[in-house]
Amino acid sequence: MIENFSAPTRRDLLSLIGKVGGGAALYQAMTALGHATESQFTGPPKLTGARPGASVLVLGGGLAGMSAAYELTKAGYKVQVLEFQGRAGGRNYTLHGGDTVTEIGSTQKVGFAPGNYLNPGPWRIPYHHRTVLHYCKQLGVELEPFSQINHNALVHHKNAFGGKPQHFRDMMVDFKGHVSELLGKALNAGALDQQVTAEDKEKLLEAMREWGVLDKNMTYSKSMAVADQRGYERAPGGGVNGAPIPNDPASLSDMLSGKVWQQMGFYAEYVMQTTMFQPKGGMDQIGKAFFKHVGKLVRLNTKVTKVTQDDKGVTATWQDAVTGAVGESKADFMVCTIPATVLNQLDIQLSPEKKAAIRALPYGNSVKIGLEMKRRFWETDYAIYGGHSFTDQAISLISYPSAGFFKEGPAVLLGAYPFGAGAYQLAGMTPEKRIEAALAQGSVFHPAEYRAEFLSGASVAWSRMPWILGCCATWTEESRAAHYQNLVSMENRIVLAGEHCSYYGCWQEGALLSSLDAVTRLHQRALAA
Amino acid sequence: MIENFSAPTRRDLLSLIGKVGGGAALYQAMTALGHATESQFTGPPKLTGARPGASVLVLGGGLAGMSAAYELTKAGYKVQVLEFQGRAGGRNYTLHGGDTVTEIGSTQKVGFAPGNYLNPGPWRIPYHHRTVLHYCKQLGVELEPFSQINHNALVHHKNAFGGKPQHFRDMMVDFKGHVSELLGKALNAGALDQQVTAEDKEKLLEAMREWGVLDKNMTYSKSMAVADQRGYERAPGGGVNGAPIPNDPASLSDMLSGKVWQQMGFYAEYVMQTTMFQPKGGMDQIGKAFFKHVGKLVRLNTKVTKVTQDDKGVTATWQDAVTGAVGESKADFMVCTIPATVLNQLDIQLSPEKKAAIRALPYGNSVKIGLEMKRRFWETDYAIYGGHSFTDQAISLISYPSAGFFKEGPAVLLGAYPFGAGAYQLAGMTPEKRIEAALAQGSVFHPAEYRAEFLSGASVAWSRMPWILGCCATWTEESRAAHYQNLVSMENRIVLAGEHCSYYGCWQEGALLSSLDAVTRLHQRALAA
Repeated sequence: MIENFSAPTRRDLLSLIGKVGGGAALYQAMTALGHATESQFTGPPKLTGARPGASVLVLGGGLAGMSAAYELTKAGYKVQVLEFQGRAGGRNYTLHGGDTVTEIGSTQKVGFAPGNYLNPGPWRIPYHHRTVLHYCKQLGVELEPFSQINHNALVHHKNAFGGKPQHFRDMMVDFKGHVSELLGKALNAGALDQQVTAEDKEKLLEAMREWGVLDKNMTYSKSMAVADQRGYERAPGGGVNGAPIPNDPASLSDMLSGKVWQQMGFYAEYVMQTTMFQPKGGMDQIGKAFFKHVGKLVRLNTKVTKVTQDDKGVTATWQDAVTGAVGESKADFMVCTIPATVLNQLDIQLSPEKKAAIRALPYGNSVKIGLEMKRRFWETDYAIYGGHSFTDQAISLISYPSAGFFKEGPAVLLGAYPFGAGAYQLAGMTPEKRIEAALAQGSVFHPAEYRAEFLSGASVAWSRMPWILGCCATWTEESRAAHYQNLVSMENRIVLAGEHCSYYGCWQEGALLSSLDAVTRLHQRALAA
Repeated sequence: MIENFSAPTRRDLLSLIGKVGGGAALYQAMTALGHATESQFTGPPKLTGARPGASVLVLGGGLAGMSAAYELTKAGYKVQVLEFQGRAGGRNYTLHGGDTVTEIGSTQKVGFAPGNYLNPGPWRIPYHHRTVLHYCKQLGVELEPFSQINHNALVHHKNAFGGKPQHFRDMMVDFKGHVSELLGKALNAGALDQQVTAEDKEKLLEAMREWGVLDKNMTYSKSMAVADQRGYERAPGGGVNGAPIPNDPASLSDMLSGKVWQQMGFYAEYVMQTTMFQPKGGMDQIGKAFFKHVGKLVRLNTKVTKVTQDDKGVTATWQDAVTGAVGESKADFMVCTIPATVLNQLDIQLSPEKKAAIRALPYGNSVKIGLEMKRRFWETDYAIYGGHSFTDQAISLISYPSAGFFKEGPAVLLGAYPFGAGAYQLAGMTPEKRIEAALAQGSVFHPAEYRAEFLSGASVAWSRMPWILGCCATWTEESRAAHYQNLVSMENRIVLAGEHCSYYGCWQEGALLSSLDAVTRLHQRALAA
């Protein structure tokens, strides 16, 4: 309107481009303006104009399924969601006191105190997972910071430092000190004069001196300057005895035995970088928030046994797990978010190519173990607030809670979080034996407290959860090249969605982005029909 | 008691050692058990048995003065605190909407919205500042995480990348990539065979390959593996267009121009490491919590003009800044926490050696500028949640709030925080011109939003604050060697305290540790008298 004219802000411009050109154009524009390359998310799809009476059946009530239901309902579709479990959310899952964990072959009752929890599935949200962040904001899920890098947490290798855990900070400072000294020596000896210009050489030497905290002889050695990074034999204080005493850096060989570059590399991963978040009260707050909106569309305890499709629509045959009743649900289209591990076993009318893709998709395994301790000894006795201590034992790491810092009373540690071999090892144990293994292995970090303060534990071995039989999709480059497009293509009236149908496998962001892409294509197909 | 006998826990043991042997013995024991080397703090001093009627006069109602009053009162002393300002807390100070900032030569009214604030003094608490954390817990000050390392924040150098700010993550990944490639080349060329054993050489090559994300030729170059750390030209997504596109690493020369090792070194400093905290609602919550306990002992608006001591006691002559009334306060002993910059000008009965120490003590300068913006564009448009963006301009850095993530409405950025030259430059400007400089310089990071979203600003130039005339003590090695012990020694009935009397200059931890040391010695002296 002319009377309200003012120069459009960048936000106005982007909003306009989004409305006119859609998501892809908006993404291009944002990228050109220097924004948003951190995510493909440019806002939820603005689906409108579903034909009156058009319907969609969604299989699976995890985040992919519920977000599909949420957006399709907004577009005007009649939606029904069929969910195998007695709860919605899928791997968006939190164990609270009183909950029951049912694996193949075992049942556990969770004994945590009120307010304490374990997120056995997703547990942290990177700053660039804009789709997850969008829905948290839209659905009113309150987020709090998740502590990722903790310099005072520990690193343990059985064959390093006599098996004694080291502070990450000490190892990191020693790593950069030794690397700097060696590169400085090579530069000064002229060994890299073919690779590096004289000007860059000077800058590199300055960088090595400063970053490595080298002395005037370009040596990494005990000094107050080094102690000001790696900490002290005696910390600085006040008054007459305030003078600090530096401690001894590790030798090159000792430092190398600790392999701290593995942790340094871990923290450098795009999906592991800071700032991170978690929902207050548990990751399941996201699933619960979706359920508030679409819960009335969800049929729980519903095991789908057969899926057919023809020119008119889709039909899912199912059995109610509680009553045993058998039924059918019909719709014009279907979004199927059942994990490939389970979908693989379902009688579903899809092409051989898509079935091959479902069969070929590899799933990783992991185990999480929660250990409730009487008190936060890691905070009071070790000054460790959040973050992770790593080990080369089967448990892989222990992680300290990011919520409730400084609180009295019991708190839950993540006592194990392995992928691969360690996960299969722990998954093969009974829940009781897993706890025992977690206590035995985690004791390397906190020997005096770990068993003494232990109250109760709970675990989830994803390969033994009947509704998923694995943790999440771990595409290889080869399987991706051979099968990914076959998996995600819409086949007549059925489209698949979920983290396995994304390039963010194992992340909620992947489940949501996949779902938004699927419903957008479904909508285009429906309008074209 | 025998009937309740059980094996003592480590905590029981430490508590016993503390009771029997005092703080020093406890510290030794804790160190031997692998704890607590991160701090000299072993719990507050357990001072008891002050002689009936014994009194202490405390000059200065900052954290050093109020903690002295708090502990001395518990020990049984009669305490009075004289404070120059109309508020207690000293540099433990937060600007809220409606506050007035009075510098030499200017007055500002703070216009921030309710709940928004700027901490012009201390603003973050490292995990190892156990004394600050102790009092926060004891006094009920609620803490929340302070976001320190933010991989998605920006780094700007006027002469790097054509003046275009870079993401810290990109620069950091490029730095380790190029350093790894060069050290790998030097190692493979045999240039370090004199310095490194064959076994360590193999491990170093493995470290360089993994940490640097080098390809099979030990080269740092564009790849999906590198993009999985530094981010993408197009981020991973879901469905048919999910495939990510890697972006281009910077060349060695470009990377070096950005000097990212300065930020990497900054984050490695012991006092800058994660996990960090801040009090909810502003750093002044700590001062206010102390004031709740000792406020009735504090005489505000009281300018001390003269201090004498003799064999019987100490006398401070003062003038009330509001009424103009003149008075005297007497006590057996004195803890003087007046900053050296001001103490230097006071007529006080101390030895030439102590006066020389007071005169010799150098103080740093700094300026902080708060900028209230209409909305959190750094979060919504840049995915920057907390942390700092650095620049080589006078403002030195801007910092994004750690509180209120995702909230709608106005929020306060720290728009400048220089020490040294930049601080003197900004301190020399009127408050209005400082804001203009902060907007002009900070715009390099957020050019479209910085001025458009600006609401109001406030600043503190510490060299112009009449009650401190500088920011904090910045001892040199030489001045420390010549004067430190002379400064902190108890002289007859007077002992000095404050961050300047510690090896944690410029930190609240130093003020508190110094105060605890001072009152412990004062108590010993009083009992011996």
